[in-house]
Amino acid sequence: MDYVKTAIPRQERLFYGADYNPDQWQACPDVLERDIELMKEAGVTSASVGIFSWTSLEPEEGIYEFAWLDRVMDRFAEAGMFVFLATPSGSKPMWLSEKYPEVRRVDKAGKREPSGWRHNHCLSSPVYREKARAINTRLAQRYQKHPALALWHVSNEYSGECHCQSCRAAFQAWLKERYGTLDALNEAWWSAFWNHTFTDWSQIQTNDLSMDGLQLDWLRFVNDQHVSFMREEMVPLRELTPDIPCTTNFMGTHEGTNYWQWAEHVDQIANDLYPLPDDRANTWQHAIRADFIHSLMRGMSGGKPWMLLECSPSSVNWGGINKLKRPGAHRQEVLQAVANGASTVHYFQWRKGRGGFEKYHGAVVDHDGSNRTRVFQDCAAIGAELASLRSLVQGDCPVAEVAMIYDWESRWALNTSCGPKELAGTGPFPSDLYTETCFDHYEALTRCGIAVDLLSTRSDFSGYKVLVLPALYLLSEELGERIRAFVQSGGQVVATCLTAYVESSNKCYLGGFPGASLRAVFGIWNEELDNLPADTRVEVRGAVEGSAKDVVERIHLDGAVSLAQAGSEFYAGEALITENDYGNGVASYLAARFEMPALLAFYRRLLEKASLCRSIDLDLPEGVVFRCRDSSEGRVGFLFNYSNQSREVEFGKLAMAAYLDPQTTYSGTIELAPYESRILRV
Amino acid sequence: MDYVKTAIPRQERLFYGADYNPDQWQACPDVLERDIELMKEAGVTSASVGIFSWTSLEPEEGIYEFAWLDRVMDRFAEAGMFVFLATPSGSKPMWLSEKYPEVRRVDKAGKREPSGWRHNHCLSSPVYREKARAINTRLAQRYQKHPALALWHVSNEYSGECHCQSCRAAFQAWLKERYGTLDALNEAWWSAFWNHTFTDWSQIQTNDLSMDGLQLDWLRFVNDQHVSFMREEMVPLRELTPDIPCTTNFMGTHEGTNYWQWAEHVDQIANDLYPLPDDRANTWQHAIRADFIHSLMRGMSGGKPWMLLECSPSSVNWGGINKLKRPGAHRQEVLQAVANGASTVHYFQWRKGRGGFEKYHGAVVDHDGSNRTRVFQDCAAIGAELASLRSLVQGDCPVAEVAMIYDWESRWALNTSCGPKELAGTGPFPSDLYTETCFDHYEALTRCGIAVDLLSTRSDFSGYKVLVLPALYLLSEELGERIRAFVQSGGQVVATCLTAYVESSNKCYLGGFPGASLRAVFGIWNEELDNLPADTRVEVRGAVEGSAKDVVERIHLDGAVSLAQAGSEFYAGEALITENDYGNGVASYLAARFEMPALLAFYRRLLEKASLCRSIDLDLPEGVVFRCRDSSEGRVGFLFNYSNQSREVEFGKLAMAAYLDPQTTYSGTIELAPYESRILRV
Amino acid sequence: MDYVKTAIPRQERLFYGADYNPDQWQACPDVLERDIELMKEAGVTSASVGIFSWTSLEPEEGIYEFAWLDRVMDRFAEAGMFVFLATPSGSKPMWLSEKYPEVRRVDKAGKREPSGWRHNHCLSSPVYREKARAINTRLAQRYQKHPALALWHVSNEYSGECHCQSCRAAFQAWLKERYGTLDALNEAWWSAFWNHTFTDWSQIQTNDLSMDGLQLDWLRFVNDQHVSFMREEMVPLRELTPDIPCTTNFMGTHEGTNYWQWAEHVDQIANDLYPLPDDRANTWQHAIRADFIHSLMRGMSGGKPWMLLECSPSSVNWGGINKLKRPGAHRQEVLQAVANGASTVHYFQWRKGRGGFEKYHGAVVDHDGSNRTRVFQDCAAIGAELASLRSLVQGDCPVAEVAMIYDWESRWALNTSCGPKELAGTGPFPSDLYTETCFDHYEALTRCGIAVDLLSTRSDFSGYKVLVLPALYLLSEELGERIRAFVQSGGQVVATCLTAYVESSNKCYLGGFPGASLRAVFGIWNEELDNLPADTRVEVRGAVEGSAKDVVERIHLDGAVSLAQAGSEFYAGEALITENDYGNGVASYLAARFEMPALLAFYRRLLEKASLCRSIDLDLPEGVVFRCRDSSEGRVGFLFNYSNQSREVEFGKLAMAAYLDPQTTYSGTIELAPYESRILRV
Repeated sequence: MDYVKTAIPRQERLFYGADYNPDQWQACPDVLERDIELMKEAGVTSASVGIFSWTSLEPEEGIYEFAWLDRVMDRFAEAGMFVFLATPSGSKPMWLSEKYPEVRRVDKAGKREPSGWRHNHCLSSPVYREKARAINTRLAQRYQKHPALALWHVSNEYSGECHCQSCRAAFQAWLKERYGTLDALNEAWWSAFWNHTFTDWSQIQTNDLSMDGLQLDWLRFVNDQHVSFMREEMVPLRELTPDIPCTTNFMGTHEGTNYWQWAEHVDQIANDLYPLPDDRANTWQHAIRADFIHSLMRGMSGGKPWMLLECSPSSVNWGGINKLKRPGAHRQEVLQAVANGASTVHYFQWRKGRGGFEKYHGAVVDHDGSNRTRVFQDCAAIGAELASLRSLVQGDCPVAEVAMIYDWESRWALNTSCGPKELAGTGPFPSDLYTETCFDHYEALTRCGIAVDLLSTRSDFSGYKVLVLPALYLLSEELGERIRAFVQSGGQVVATCLTAYVESSNKCYLGGFPGASLRAVFGIWNEELDNLPADTRVEVRGAVEGSAKDVVERIHLDGAVSLAQAGSEFYAGEALITENDYGNGVASYLAARFEMPALLAFYRRLLEKASLCRSIDLDLPEGVVFRCRDSSEGRVGFLFNYSNQSREVEFGKLAMAAYLDPQTTYSGTIELAPYESRILRV
Repeated sequence: MDYVKTAIPRQERLFYGADYNPDQWQACPDVLERDIELMKEAGVTSASVGIFSWTSLEPEEGIYEFAWLDRVMDRFAEAGMFVFLATPSGSKPMWLSEKYPEVRRVDKAGKREPSGWRHNHCLSSPVYREKARAINTRLAQRYQKHPALALWHVSNEYSGECHCQSCRAAFQAWLKERYGTLDALNEAWWSAFWNHTFTDWSQIQTNDLSMDGLQLDWLRFVNDQHVSFMREEMVPLRELTPDIPCTTNFMGTHEGTNYWQWAEHVDQIANDLYPLPDDRANTWQHAIRADFIHSLMRGMSGGKPWMLLECSPSSVNWGGINKLKRPGAHRQEVLQAVANGASTVHYFQWRKGRGGFEKYHGAVVDHDGSNRTRVFQDCAAIGAELASLRSLVQGDCPVAEVAMIYDWESRWALNTSCGPKELAGTGPFPSDLYTETCFDHYEALTRCGIAVDLLSTRSDFSGYKVLVLPALYLLSEELGERIRAFVQSGGQVVATCLTAYVESSNKCYLGGFPGASLRAVFGIWNEELDNLPADTRVEVRGAVEGSAKDVVERIHLDGAVSLAQAGSEFYAGEALITENDYGNGVASYLAARFEMPALLAFYRRLLEKASLCRSIDLDLPEGVVFRCRDSSEGRVGFLFNYSNQSREVEFGKLAMAAYLDPQTTYSGTIELAPYESRILRV
Repeated sequence: MDYVKTAIPRQERLFYGADYNPDQWQACPDVLERDIELMKEAGVTSASVGIFSWTSLEPEEGIYEFAWLDRVMDRFAEAGMFVFLATPSGSKPMWLSEKYPEVRRVDKAGKREPSGWRHNHCLSSPVYREKARAINTRLAQRYQKHPALALWHVSNEYSGECHCQSCRAAFQAWLKERYGTLDALNEAWWSAFWNHTFTDWSQIQTNDLSMDGLQLDWLRFVNDQHVSFMREEMVPLRELTPDIPCTTNFMGTHEGTNYWQWAEHVDQIANDLYPLPDDRANTWQHAIRADFIHSLMRGMSGGKPWMLLECSPSSVNWGGINKLKRPGAHRQEVLQAVANGASTVHYFQWRKGRGGFEKYHGAVVDHDGSNRTRVFQDCAAIGAELASLRSLVQGDCPVAEVAMIYDWESRWALNTSCGPKELAGTGPFPSDLYTETCFDHYEALTRCGIAVDLLSTRSDFSGYKVLVLPALYLLSEELGERIRAFVQSGGQVVATCLTAYVESSNKCYLGGFPGASLRAVFGIWNEELDNLPADTRVEVRGAVEGSAKDVVERIHLDGAVSLAQAGSEFYAGEALITENDYGNGVASYLAARFEMPALLAFYRRLLEKASLCRSIDLDLPEGVVFRCRDSSEGRVGFLFNYSNQSREVEFGKLAMAAYLDPQTTYSGTIELAPYESRILRV
């Protein structure tokens, strides 16, 4: 699978801007002019407009009003700025949802939602699809030649599910397409369990927590319905404006959306990311998680630049306890995205609205309305800095030597399987046992200085030196064969506990885990899974030392050698980390969730054994990370102190010039303030 | 606004009694006689009768039975006791709610409730209003001349909300009345946000958590519907018994009911208060909160006596862990109400029922049925003591020099605005960030020995020396002007963080906080709000020292001087408490939630600077509070030890006689046992 | 009431087996043969078959398919194994629940459930009763002469409730039957409280949390409906197979099912028990709770052997954190049941299914499919051991000298009464304040080495030396009289706080607690109940020392003497444990929830005073328990170390032979490994 995206035609520098909602300010006509002025001061290049403006554009069914939008588009064009024009389907007009109740979702309990809120239209409703297509067509017709139009921002943060009878019928049809016969479906879902055998397609529910097969397919179906809706929205856009790329804003590790599938249908990869401000001791780990998500987007873009389409210039309003961003933190967030390949940094939002759910969400312009706020001044300084980084706009990040698979199907299958310990993510991004395991391994690799590319199960990983498979719980025989071939021909694979328990139907493999014919590759048999209370630690002894927690497998050597063994519990002495020479390669198995010291020891050993290159040849202190990206003027390095403490970096004999001030050279001992970021010529 | 109430015509001494439910005991005819006997023994003057007796009075639609009530009224009259006769609307008869399902409420999720429970009739149902009016008319007709009748107890603890289609239509009509046009409503609610613009009145929901304007108006509407229902209940009562005052029992700081509005329509202010028994170390702070609520009632009564219409003579049954009241605690609760102006102390309830939800709720007479219980003996002793305090019956509490505004609209607006930290109240009374802030400032003032009057935003505060505005989040331009004028002419105002963020529609002020033109008065600009995790403390340094927590604002001096500054966080050195000379007065701003030592330091300084008088010129130890009230025999002082420890009070050269024993004089060092209360001649 | 059961006709040794679901494996025809082979290897005698196989047996309404079951029955017979044949009503076929929606339950909120899940058919639906009876009839007809058929396993874990209109009508009819008139019902329910008087039967709801009388009757009704359903299922079975006993699997202390009533209608007592694997320090207390439940089953069987019909050979999948069983733990669980009189040990389940909610539930055969797993090997060893214990099959446990009443009606009444502290059970079995109190007293007695028989309120307890009544909250006058007579004639009774508060309607007794005329028997008056926060401890001083917590009563001596008094709180010095000589016996009252040291001290004193015999005359260390049971070869002793630590038992001069190795004799100091179990000849 090739995910490689092409550039935005009109983009000549890094885009910098925000969501902008002039439709909320129609009663204050001077605001638009003031905003244009402030945008210029802040170095803004572009804005996403119209995301929730359906009623402003179509106040009555079939009656359209574009005057206000015309004015915005024109003023942007005059100011030399671009508009990412949104289709407005993210929020249903009140007239529409009251006239056609069927466009409102039905929840799991069978209750139809009232009008209101957002991101909650029925995924299957023909009426809603028709109405969305109509307004999209009008927008494309009206602005197809407009010089401000640079991009289509299709809808907004698609998500959620609907359990109405129309969705139920669509699910049944989807299943018929997938399985052909009820016998096949019953076998796939193991539905004889608890007497759940279906004898007619119409009997199938959209929700039964006791049926893991049904649940997994429901998640797939919901994802497919979203993609289908998005694609239907794009039809008139692609037809009328073939040169304007279409995107939609993803939400990182949001559980319900398998973005690898979405990535195949958009022209640009775009993401929203809110690393909730927090300056406690472990915050730098949160920054590495943000890094993971940026890498995921880069993976979906095939290594090409991608768009950070929403982030907050300050705190959010919905985060529970909404702390202000500490000095340096905001610039660091922006530069971190750029270091990871972002072509664009946009905020939600330009100007705080006076009312509504998000009236206190961070914005460049506060209710105060002036340019004197800390936040505005910060944003303007960043705007100037990004303008000076123009050479990066089409620059890629170097291809890594290590690839990691991130797979929503494994996540869904694990989360719908009752038995293995459930883990609440530790934040600030959506996660669970599956995603936490990925985060752990990504963090360990990052702290070892090793860059990682994130791939899908359909990606070609044959060119990498090392392939890391954290908790790849659902693993098809076909992928198992590709992994086998990778190792056979000299690759190094690292798998963890919870690998290859189920096939694509969510049914367990028979004959001993890991399934998918991988037992020979890893040279082990995984007999049983011990789930542990939160405060239990299992000692790890051997070539790797430390501790394990949460989940530990009892594995048996069947060809592999043991690198580390349990030092406590009744399975003390049994292998916890194994290595198996297979073909020309090596397959490692980590049969537990390890704490960071053990993971770091494992990967430091791997770094050496596999002769991997570090991003920079320095030992960096905890919380300090180095990233690099190519530019038209050579490779650019970013040195980040993610921690809330000052850190000293020993450059030793290395010396690098400051990117924006080539006179300044870094060498010897460099002191980085909390949250400090430096840009270097590598 | 003038809230001043007149006295109950027939009252000649402090009323003492309880809710009484003889309708539950009709199968035991001797119980009424036994109760009259026990009431005499306990010093009872009066009882609230018939609160939940609709079915006993009207067993079938239109068929009335008054015989049992006749007997009760007659026996009370013979015994020289009064009846507060209730209208029975607090609980719907089963026959009524089954025959007319529309009188049952519909919950937020759209589900109509089953019959049962209580306090849950639809606020808008014409049927229920008609049936309630009919039974009220019969009651008034039958007992209008009865010598036992002293007061109408209209319904019971009105509260809650209904989301039926009838309430929805009423809400839409109420909004039409309020806003006139949909354009005005959409502007007020900022409904263009998330595309929530209404294009027809009929589209408006009763509930959308994403619309802060809608939610605030919904709370106003529900409150208005309750008041409207109450007033409709009173129509036949006022017509047939013009000399009998009407009241309804409030619930202190209950969130959904803006009692300032109710106070305008009742003849007597009456409250129910349950300071859950608890004798841990900080219980004395709970007692100060009870004091706050008593002062609130006194404020609603315009400084005149008010009624404590429900409290428990022992534990309640619904408090989670229902501890017994420790010795002294119950007498203290009763005297605390009297010290704060109560004309009446009534219990819920006289006699424990044998079954039902409250069968274990504290009562004067237990299931045991005798006079030998600790509780009965306690109550009888208090009955005798209250009889000896007859001189207090029309006595007011002295007018304070300090006023504080308590405002449900600010509370509602803050609670419906998403962003500022949400705070769970620490009990035992309903509270939240808004109310906790009020409690904090009231406690600090009380601990400094300063009496406080509680006012509404409509009250005239021009006569006070100091006006305290804790978290007055919703603040109209009109009130802002009155505050300005107050300071201009020499008043001292104290405001806190979260002042004047929004106007009456819940929309944020533009141009910088505090809004409502108060920036000049305070001489500051409040730039941004930092919300802090529970365990974070910000140091406070300067003329006031201590710490802040939960919410801290970053403010800028714009004329004001800084009294105290942050000593930690990135805003270390910035002002946290300011003072601004404005006109002839002074405006102080406390830009954080402070912990008690800092608040005490601030108010001790104010006490001196503003030359305020303490209620008694003594330094009282922690947990000891002094209150006074006028009587026909001069001023009476109450000295309370609210703490669970003995306390020593140094009277120094002061000497006061015991009120009920003028021979005894207190001077020198007085030792107060835990929960001890003493009554003095001042 | 006589609960004595007769033996299973075909049983000649201890049954050992599992739930078996060959219907899930019809696509893998070799699995049945492989299973028979593995069963033989594991020493299996029997299996429960067909529990959730309705659709496999009746794929369309009225169309039956028995071929697969014929094959299973025949193969079992050939292999000399038995089948416990299930009626399949535990899970509704999809075709049935979709065609007849009325068979699906309606929840408390009035919502009808979708198809799916299990154990959720409407208890009243005539359609479901008819369909269940039809399939049961077919099964009985087909297999009535089959040599494999040993037992009817009627349905599965009946539980839950339905609030549909049909159940509501059935509840109203049940009430009419119980009360005769509405006046009687209103009086019983004290429904004048909150105006809940019913004036027509049709007004009665199935759920009103404010009506304790209604709730208690609802629980009784639901229990009765289950029993009625079960009995209706049995009609064709008893008619067609009069010699095959019928049972259904109970769930220990499951709250909603008063198994004493069920016990009257089944031929064998059978239980499911899952003491979730956990090896923390207090696990041995969990094992004593399992012991309690085994004793309860023995009580329901009238002291005769009973069946452990489900337990897990390993972890479960639904326990939150599913730890593996530590070595020794599984054998101990099995032998514990046997020591307590089990005739049968069956697992859920034989073979793990590949999909569905329980795909990871422990099973003898794992997904691996082999005999090489730790679990299979464990099970096979136990199978061999049980075969060698053939002499136990009809052996009873010795009748104890101490009886304890466990009463669901008291539990329900306490849980539906609002006021006394609510207590979350500490696991691993369903419990609450009532059941925890029973567990506490059972643990104390067990730790003193005293065996206990568990009885119902209808059991004849006249032959016991001591009768323990923990928290017998609902206590009828009739039972009160039987208790009085027991003491009168020389018995010793021990009652605790919360005794005899309410009569059978859940109405409080008048005239002082304990009610039911027991004040004279105990010689006390219980005035009031103090509920305490979790961290409060009340000192206990006197002949028994220690502490009390959670609930403490203030009692007055009225003839009794005080054994121990409170040492703290305002009731310091008041009696907490009393003793009253009454007739020829003694009545003790424990007026609080005591911590274990105090309870142990109390029962050690009782052991001596009442001259009770210990099960074995040894002082056993903490966590070590001795049980015995009769066999055809004499009395057999079981010595269990329930703790996770090694323990030393001092046999002193005692010497006992190992049951299976009479050469080996235990004497002197015996060291028991963690979870070790030994079988001895006594």
